[in-house]
Amino acid sequence: MSVLVVGSVALDSVETPFGKADDVLGGSANYFAASASHQTNVQLVGVIGSDYPVEKLDPLKARGIDFAGLEQMEGESFRWRGRYRHDLNSAETLETRLGVFSHFKPKIPAQFTDAKYVFLANIDPRLQLEVLRQVKAPKLVACDTMNFWIESRRADLLELLKHVDLITLNDGEARQLTECANLVQAARWIMDKGPKTVLIKKGEHGAFMFTRDEIFFAPAYPLESVFDPTGAGDSFAGGFMGWLARTNDLTNANLRRAVIVGSAMGSFVVEGFSITRLMEISRDDIERRVADFHRLVSFDKALNA
Amino acid sequence: MSVLVVGSVALDSVETPFGKADDVLGGSANYFAASASHQTNVQLVGVIGSDYPVEKLDPLKARGIDFAGLEQMEGESFRWRGRYRHDLNSAETLETRLGVFSHFKPKIPAQFTDAKYVFLANIDPRLQLEVLRQVKAPKLVACDTMNFWIESRRADLLELLKHVDLITLNDGEARQLTECANLVQAARWIMDKGPKTVLIKKGEHGAFMFTRDEIFFAPAYPLESVFDPTGAGDSFAGGFMGWLARTNDLTNANLRRAVIVGSAMGSFVVEGFSITRLMEISRDDIERRVADFHRLVSFDKALNA
Repeated sequence: MSVLVVGSVALDSVETPFGKADDVLGGSANYFAASASHQTNVQLVGVIGSDYPVEKLDPLKARGIDFAGLEQMEGESFRWRGRYRHDLNSAETLETRLGVFSHFKPKIPAQFTDAKYVFLANIDPRLQLEVLRQVKAPKLVACDTMNFWIESRRADLLELLKHVDLITLNDGEARQLTECANLVQAARWIMDKGPKTVLIKKGEHGAFMFTRDEIFFAPAYPLESVFDPTGAGDSFAGGFMGWLARTNDLTNANLRRAVIVGSAMGSFVVEGFSITRLMEISRDDIERRVADFHRLVSFDKALNA
Repeated sequence: MSVLVVGSVALDSVETPFGKADDVLGGSANYFAASASHQTNVQLVGVIGSDYPVEKLDPLKARGIDFAGLEQMEGESFRWRGRYRHDLNSAETLETRLGVFSHFKPKIPAQFTDAKYVFLANIDPRLQLEVLRQVKAPKLVACDTMNFWIESRRADLLELLKHVDLITLNDGEARQLTECANLVQAARWIMDKGPKTVLIKKGEHGAFMFTRDEIFFAPAYPLESVFDPTGAGDSFAGGFMGWLARTNDLTNANLRRAVIVGSAMGSFVVEGFSITRLMEISRDDIERRVADFHRLVSFDKALNA
């Protein structure tokens, strides 16, 4: 199966302790698509301005990403400029210029409306709901969100939760949305609002997947050097959804595997600027890293002294 | 094998969002011993003042903890008073009265000097070195430390590192000691100074065990309610060292198991004030939690789509 993503296609300028990059491919949909493309075909819906260097998308097209849903509008593209300090834990946003993205009205091309796996990247929940009205019979709908929407579009976000199967958000956002400091309680609160599965991302501290009967935890891969953390969450989501779409298997065991594939993709993307590393790695690299994750957490539970 | 612990025996007064407790058993050695006693006999060396309610130690004695090394001195016992706010992440120390603990000179009773498994809890590195001069031929020596000693006794701590097999410290302390923000690099820095094994505790974010060739990660157990985080680190160390002493097996596979036993003990102790929960649970409870940890992180690594 292929996977449909609706989100931002941006140009990022990033500074880290290790270097800087200007006007490189960024945005949730780009990161998601580059990551998911290692597993399956990706259909992308987004918007760019008249200034977007579209030729930079050619390597993504070559990887089977279908940009038929990428609208080009008169005006400036979405640009983000940010900086990471020594500890690399949180981005400092220096500038955000929404440009044409502030007028984004996602239109799902007719040939995408049959999508079975849908990822609503971090955009206005009203637009996320718009997308759901346009897809016919999805098998799994997942959404991301952020502090800004939790604050400014709470009612819409709660409405959206009724219509998604899965939500990914970080620990701070989960606490903000639910007003529960405890993540187990926060996850239950969210599941009560609709999603059967809640993925709470904790950045360098890994990710929890909560379902009604199970909790699964995946650590972040202990990299010796993190180059640029931008896009880790969306690459995680791309690996996760890409794997599910490829296997078309929604058992708990396969959801766990999907979390690990997502974690692997998140660990690759931070090894370079933009999507550089995602364009270099192979399926073998991904399998090796999945095996590394397995070694990282494996222990023999038999306590026979 | 039994395990020897040298550390503080204190009286704690703690306030959490869920209640308060006054003058309850506290101190690194008490927590360590209560935890390790589920696995093996424990020999304890510490000091208390003339005001210590020694009868409160009876349940610990009944669990096979040998207090022959507990010196009682004229004066006040070590008292700590602290508070945890809503998020339970960090203790706010309201008062520390060292009392007789400030004159502590650990004397290892003759019958303890053959100890094979030794845990030097968080005390002055000069005293930790003193202890090592008194034990004859330990098989595994582990130490803990804290920000105060890293700052004020750096040279002594570096000397100590030459003589220990393993160190436990939290992520902030590891970064402070090594001046490496990255934990993989920090662990390597520490291993270069002596210890073959470095256990970095990340509180609610789990723990890493680094050895020359391997990294192992254990999550913290996702509890729905944490009652009082005091003593989690020492209970972790007690479970870890207790398991190693009981099995007398220092293979990597068994070190991994020991980390999980430690994590299980850390997850129990925070369910109540002081050592209450450690005195209630059975080996069956511990085994069940170890199995829960196994379920929490298990996944099938075969990526056959």
